[in-house]
Order: sequence, then structure tokens, then C-alpha cells
Amino acid sequence: MSKGTTGNGNADLGLRLDRSSRTPLYRQIEGGVREAVAAGRLIAGARLPPERTLAAALGVDRTTVVAAYRELAADGLVHAHVGRGTTVAAGMERFPVQGRSDLRAGGAGRPLDWPQLFAPMVEDDPALADIAALAGREEVISFVAGVPAAETYPTRTFRSLLAEALGPGGEGLLQYCPPEGYGPLREAIAARMARLGMPVPPNRVFICGGSQQGLYLLARAFIEPGDTVAVEAPTYVGALQVFRAAGARLVSMPADREGLDPDRLGEMLERRPIKLIYVLPTFQNPTGATLSLERRQRLLAIARRHAVPVIEDDPYGELRYEGEPVPSLLSLADGPTSPVVYLSTFSKVLFPGFRLGWVVAAPPLIERLAWVKALVDLESNPLAQWAVAEYLDRGQLDGHLAGLVPVYTARRDALERALRHEAGEMLSWRAPAGGFYLWVHLLGGLRAREVLAEASRLGVAFVPGDLFHVDGGGRDALRLAFSGLPPDQIEEGVRRLAAALTAVAERRAVAPGRAPVRPTRIV
Amino acid sequence: MSKGTTGNGNADLGLRLDRSSRTPLYRQIEGGVREAVAAGRLIAGARLPPERTLAAALGVDRTTVVAAYRELAADGLVHAHVGRGTTVAAGMERFPVQGRSDLRAGGAGRPLDWPQLFAPMVEDDPALADIAALAGREEVISFVAGVPAAETYPTRTFRSLLAEALGPGGEGLLQYCPPEGYGPLREAIAARMARLGMPVPPNRVFICGGSQQGLYLLARAFIEPGDTVAVEAPTYVGALQVFRAAGARLVSMPADREGLDPDRLGEMLERRPIKLIYVLPTFQNPTGATLSLERRQRLLAIARRHAVPVIEDDPYGELRYEGEPVPSLLSLADGPTSPVVYLSTFSKVLFPGFRLGWVVAAPPLIERLAWVKALVDLESNPLAQWAVAEYLDRGQLDGHLAGLVPVYTARRDALERALRHEAGEMLSWRAPAGGFYLWVHLLGGLRAREVLAEASRLGVAFVPGDLFHVDGGGRDALRLAFSGLPPDQIEEGVRRLAAALTAVAERRAVAPGRAPVRPTRIV
Repeated sequence: MSKGTTGNGNADLGLRLDRSSRTPLYRQIEGGVREAVAAGRLIAGARLPPERTLAAALGVDRTTVVAAYRELAADGLVHAHVGRGTTVAAGMERFPVQGRSDLRAGGAGRPLDWPQLFAPMVEDDPALADIAALAGREEVISFVAGVPAAETYPTRTFRSLLAEALGPGGEGLLQYCPPEGYGPLREAIAARMARLGMPVPPNRVFICGGSQQGLYLLARAFIEPGDTVAVEAPTYVGALQVFRAAGARLVSMPADREGLDPDRLGEMLERRPIKLIYVLPTFQNPTGATLSLERRQRLLAIARRHAVPVIEDDPYGELRYEGEPVPSLLSLADGPTSPVVYLSTFSKVLFPGFRLGWVVAAPPLIERLAWVKALVDLESNPLAQWAVAEYLDRGQLDGHLAGLVPVYTARRDALERALRHEAGEMLSWRAPAGGFYLWVHLLGGLRAREVLAEASRLGVAFVPGDLFHVDGGGRDALRLAFSGLPPDQIEEGVRRLAAALTAVAERRAVAPGRAPVRPTRIV
Repeated sequence: MSKGTTGNGNADLGLRLDRSSRTPLYRQIEGGVREAVAAGRLIAGARLPPERTLAAALGVDRTTVVAAYRELAADGLVHAHVGRGTTVAAGMERFPVQGRSDLRAGGAGRPLDWPQLFAPMVEDDPALADIAALAGREEVISFVAGVPAAETYPTRTFRSLLAEALGPGGEGLLQYCPPEGYGPLREAIAARMARLGMPVPPNRVFICGGSQQGLYLLARAFIEPGDTVAVEAPTYVGALQVFRAAGARLVSMPADREGLDPDRLGEMLERRPIKLIYVLPTFQNPTGATLSLERRQRLLAIARRHAVPVIEDDPYGELRYEGEPVPSLLSLADGPTSPVVYLSTFSKVLFPGFRLGWVVAAPPLIERLAWVKALVDLESNPLAQWAVAEYLDRGQLDGHLAGLVPVYTARRDALERALRHEAGEMLSWRAPAGGFYLWVHLLGGLRAREVLAEASRLGVAFVPGDLFHVDGGGRDALRLAFSGLPPDQIEEGVRRLAAALTAVAERRAVAPGRAPVRPTRIV
């Protein structure tokens, strides 16, 4: 084989893709190249086929090959040279190959088949990884993640706070701290919640590593394999992942246009035992909707009657752009018989990097969470906890929140305006009064995954609605996160989205009723 | 009942302790007071019995009552007034009571019985909580925790690094980051490990929230309930907790005076399947011992032969006070057939508060760990990761480590000197060449838990040896962590320990063979 070519014109590298596999296509391509290197079919310096060539040979989108080559480059297995293509790096034979063990280099003893050793787990829909890869591409405008606007971060204030913290005596904040959290932060959160109408003593506030960790610890505390968790339809993907990984059976709660229908939930609870109810009552993820006061009260009455804990996930409650606040479930049901476990985070109102959230719960649950947290990571960073406590104690969060409102209002409005202008006749939605998300229904029978396939080619990304459902619903819906994009990017993103919608609608018109080519595995 | 007394001379508050319960005595006292408040037997302003009085009435040590009152005060249920005793706070009836639901205040619906809702879990030995409470008391000299010396923390350097990080453009470090870790930190760790004889590419380095989280994620990745994990006897308590919580069966590996005996481990592996081997080969916790090169090689050969992964936990490897380094298992077994999963942390060489450790593993395992980490807390703090990466890249860790050696050498030497001087005839030990711990055997048939009961009265704390064993071994041993105490504190602590040893030995001499009064539930 002459160096610098892929050998005998083998434009597909001998790769065979399995479209029925749960492994994303780009991972299959990546794995195939690894095996070819390990088997000596591709030697150091060999040039991989150009992305377009390989894509055409394999019948996949070019972006799939781009994603595969990027993974290989990140691992140091190949080098990408501008204008010269991609070549195999030197000396990579000594690193283990994923997958087929017969291709591994020799050595003393049996090679370990690592995946064979892993505990079984519920696999994610591979579309999640594909969408994340798509969203990470530089040329793509991503409505995928609910990331707060980095322009708003109080970076300078926290720079001063950290410098102050690490002044004389500051080594105490680099030490171990209790798993329940740093005392002054628990107190500062309790004080803030009291001002928001949720009076709780500090010992009922538990600090966790963001609300993702809060959910994980709660799942670990409550769920045994086979327990049922009732969720909204649609609901937060990360919660579905955590509950599934804990072995829970997920059921959607009955809902209508106003959201969760408590009376029908009550009927459901008469028929089957439910271990936990998980809700996002305010500026819901993904719909942006807010449950009415009256429904909140009925939900609580039903949860109390059946003694089922209600996890109230409230990351966005303070991000209201218009209208009057609706009381949280926690504030409606404090006291000894409250079934509410409240969860929130600083990730959306400040920034995500400090990994700080909190749970408000009854003392026995706080104690259990602390036990689990001590297993999981001992504690959250006390320096970061001190800085946020000081920020709260100095009363700086209110001013910061006030500054966020015009930023996010402008983004939401830009998104709605652009959607109306570019694609109003193909979509329907309700404007959210707060939070980070717009939930869009596709008209005319379009499917969100089909639109995503086209959108990815046109450089725009979103999350198709079925990923937020546990029962296959939401195929005609998609979520647009507007928080992380400035208005001009939003407008350009919507132009691309509209072009994708048009293209799919036109294909449909040409071949009515024809199933999309690859509706479930798309980048 | 007249306000300001406990009523009709009821010096024990009507409390009944259950000495066979796994709930620590101080928790039982705390719960009893809570119930009395909820039931109206103790009203706001009522004075609790003085600590000594209640201790005498219940037949417990005064420190047990102190711990219970401290918990109640921390919860705001009681107020402690210097010189006026402890009184019940006002308005506490509205908070839920732990435990007996028939005592809870009324309200709409059934009160939730939270503990009843929890998923079952393996309970810790309650002695662990009791020892932690004892170690936390101000007047106690604690040899309990392997805490690095706060005087050594490079606080000023990290103050500058964080200020630099949060300069212009710094908001990127407050953002989300990949679950595998911040790229530059993975690279900096890979570069450092290469210099230490362990060349690994950055994509085989995974960042976790301290080595505790590393262990947790590894347990979650590998262990199904019923799987067997082989551990050293004795070994790190936190690892035992994680493996037990994952449902593992723990078996002790055969050992002799030189530590783990690989040939006998090989025989064991012929007889039964083992999912994971967990070892701390260098400056072991708790023994301080280091496995010889020859045994390391035999251990690896056996693990390879049986294709069993070996977790090499190495928090202390760079904290050597004398002698030549022994190669890590990772460096002895790199390559495609390596069974080694390497784990280390910055908590011991820098400081614990940043919660940063790392795992070196084969790519499929890195991918699995990232998946679990995304569930558990999404990511570790990127700002902290940046700061440590810069610290490494600027070559500052070597100088810092050089500065640690004399500090810890002096502490270890002070401990040995004091032990020889104060209690040499009652103890035996081997000096560790590095790390944080001295493992001491009690001579003359003394039991460590019996000594701890006496020691707690005299104001010194340590961890009894049986807590590091899975099979009841180690009752005649105890662990002394010398890292966190300056030499004068070490000397005073050993004087108290020696007094405790003498007192127990004298009691034994008076009543030979008599069982200790409360050997297993002591503060």
C-alpha cells in the first residue's frame, strides 16, 4: 500500500454500517477506522478518504463523517491538515481498540472485554448523542441546550468574591465540608426562600451539585427497580434519563391544553401505585407552560391523599418576563404533611459552572440525601458555596435577575417574531411568560426528526419533541431554547429552520405519504 | 407544667434508649426530644435537663448528650444559653418530626412516612457517625480523618489563578463543560503522568469529583447486586461503603506481613468469580504499607490471566518521605491488555475543596464513566479544572510536593516518637514511608473500640481497626492519621491516648476476661 493513499481505491474503507444498531452512525465509522488501524489495514501516515467521498460511498450525510473524523482527531488517532485531508497518526497501535477483541494487539494474558464487564444500563436514545454532536459544530446555530446567556454572567463580581474568599484564613474554604452543604449557604438560601414566600429552616436546605445531581440523589434515595414515577408529557430529558437509569418505570400523567390534569391523575392513582410524581410547574421544560394556582392546589390535595411525594423542579421560577408569579407547590404545602420535595439551582439564574443547586425536604430525606452524597462525591466545593452565599447575603441576586429579564425577553420576542415572519403558516406555539424554551408544533403532518435531518444540513439544530416523551408522543413538536443565542443569531437560525421546513414540506408534496428515508438516526 | 422546668422531676425526659438498635444513642436522644416537643410534652421555653443529669439518668456518657443537644440546636429546635442551660425554641411544632408519625401535627391528608418511602440501602456501622461526631468536637484532638495540612495549601497561588481565570473572557469558565472533563486539564494530567513513567493519551484521562466520585462512578459502571469485589484487609472505609451500597459482596484478599499475597489470590480466583479487585498499593489506607515491585508484577499477571479489572487507588503515591518510588500498577501494565484502572486525586497533594480527581482507563470505560457522570452531576467545575491545569502546566506542583515532605515527615516522626515515649510497651507498628496514616496494633489483648470509649472521655479520637475490615478483623488495631495535626497537638493527643490505654489495661487487670460494658456503641 503506498503511503498517502487509502490503497486500492477503497473509498468506503471497507466499512459496513448497521443502520438497525443503537450505536450512532458516526460512532460506527469511528470504530471502523480504529479497527482498520489496529489491524494494520491503515498504517501511520495513510490518508483517509475525503469526507464527501466517504459519505457518498457509505450513503450517509457528510456531517456524519465529519463527526467521526473529529472524534478520531480528538483521540490523537488521526491528524486533520487544512487542505491536505486527514491522515493516520504515528504510534497509535499501542492504544486499545474499542470493540472487536480479535483485532487488539497481543500481550501477556487475555485482553479485557470492557463493555462485557459493565453493569447493564438503560441505553439512551442514540439521537441524543447525535444531536449533541450536531449542536457542538461551529457552523451550526444551536437551539438545543438551555444554556444561560454568558454575556450576563456576573463574572467580575465573582472574581472579587473569590479573591476575598482566598485572602488570609481562606484555606478553610479549600478544606472538606459537610455533605449537607456549607452552613452559611444553607442559611442564605433559607433566607431568600423566606422572602419568596417559602419559609424553611436552614437544616431543611440541602446543597447539591446542580439540580441534575439533586435529581440523581433523589432517584437514588427513593427508587427501587420497578418503581413507577409519574412525569409530565413532555418533560425534562435529564430527569427521564436519571429515573430510567435507576430502574424506574415511567408513566405520563394525563394532561390537557392547560397542562397536567390533577383529577385524572387522581383516577390514575386509584388504579396503580406510584412512588414519585415529578413536575416542573413553572416555565416548564420543554413547553414553557405554567400550571395554574388552582391546578397546583388540586395536585397537592391528590398527592397528600395518596401520600405520594411530589418533586417540584423549579430552575426557571425566578425568570419571569411578564405577569404575576404563581405560588410554588412548596409554598402552598409547607408543614408536617407536605408531600413536596423542592429542587432548584443557580445554574440558570447565575451560571452553570459552579455546579450548585439545592433541595428543600423533610429532615429524614435531608439525612438520606447527605448519606448518598457522601458516597457520590463527599461534598460540593466549599469555596464556590461561600461565594454564592456572600452574593446572596449582599443582596446582589435581585439586581442581577432584574438585568436578565430584558435580555431574555428580547430573545424570546426575536424568536417569536422570526418564526411568525419566516414560518408562521407551518407552525403553532404559545408564548412562554418566562424560562428558556419555546415549544413548537409542526402543522401539515411534518415530523420533527425529518425536519432535523434537513436542518442539520442547513446548519441549525433543535431537539425533536419525542425525546421529551416516554410514550412516543411529540413527534410533531420540537423545542427551541432561545436563552443562549443573541437576537441576530436567532433570526438567522429561524431562516435556516424555515428553509428546512419548506424543503421537507415540498418533498412531502411531491411524494405524499412516503415515509422519510432515515427518520430515527440523523445527523 | 411550669415553664422553665422539665416538669415533675423527670430527669430522663421519659426517654427509653434501645442499645441493640443500629441508630446511634445520640440520635435516639435527639429523636426523643423531637417527639416530646411534637407531642406537647416539652413546650416552647421549657428547659432541658442539664447534660450531666440526663447522661446519668440514661446511663450514657455526657458527650453523647452533648452531641444530641448540639444536633437539636443546629436544627433550631432548642437554644443553648451559656450558664442558663438549654431551652426549647418557639414555633418549632410546625416542622415535621422524624420517626413516629402518630406524634406528628395534623393537617390535610396523610403525613408522609419518609423513611418508609426510601429505597433499601446497606446501613453503615453507626460507629462511623459516632466517631465523626466525636472528631468534630472542639476539645477533641482528632487522629480520625486523613486531612491534608491546611497550612500547606497554596491559597495565594490559587487566588491569583482564579483572578486570572475570571479576567476578560472568563465567563467561558463558568459555563457547562464536557462530562469527561475540561480538555486542558486532561492534557496537563496526561503530561504529568508521562513524566512519572505512566504515558497515557489525554482521552484516557477522565476528570471526576475527587477520588470518592471516581470510586462511585466505577462501582456504578461495573457492579450489579451480588457481584464480588475483592479488597485488601484492611482497606479504605469509603471504598467499602461505595461497593456495599452498589450491592457488591466483599471478600478480603489473602495477605501476609508483606501485604496482599498474589499467589493465594490466584488460588481464590480459581475457585470463585470476582468482578473487580480494589487495591491501594502505595502508602495504603489504613496501613501505610507499600506493596513490593515483585508482588505488583505477580498481582498483574494473575489479574491478566483471569481478565479481572484492578482498580489501583493512588491518592498518596507522590507523598513519599523516604526511599525510592515503586512503579505503579498502571506503569507496569500499560497497553491493550492492561487490566488496570488507575485512580488518583488532587485532594491530598493540593487541597480537597476543589473536588477534583481523575481516572485513567481504556476508552470504552471512559465513555461509560462519562455517561454515568452526566447522570450524577453533568460535569466538574470548569473554573477549578482550569486553575489546576494551569498550576500543573506552570510546573508548580513539583515544588509544592517538595515542600510537603518535611511537613509530613515531621508529623509522622512526632507521632512515632510520642508513641514510643508514652505507650511503647502497649503498641506495635511499622513506620510508613509516605502517606497520611500510622496503623497501630494493641498489645495485651486490648480492643480498639474499648480504648476509643475511654479515649473519647479523655479528648482524643481515632478510627478502630475493625471498620477497615469486611470480616470482623482488626479489633486489636487502630488507625492514626497524622497529616492534619501539628506536632504539639500530636504529642498531646498521644498523651491522652496513652492515658486511655493505661486506664483500659488497668480495668482489664482488675477484672481479667470481663467483657467491656459497651464495646460497640461508643462516643
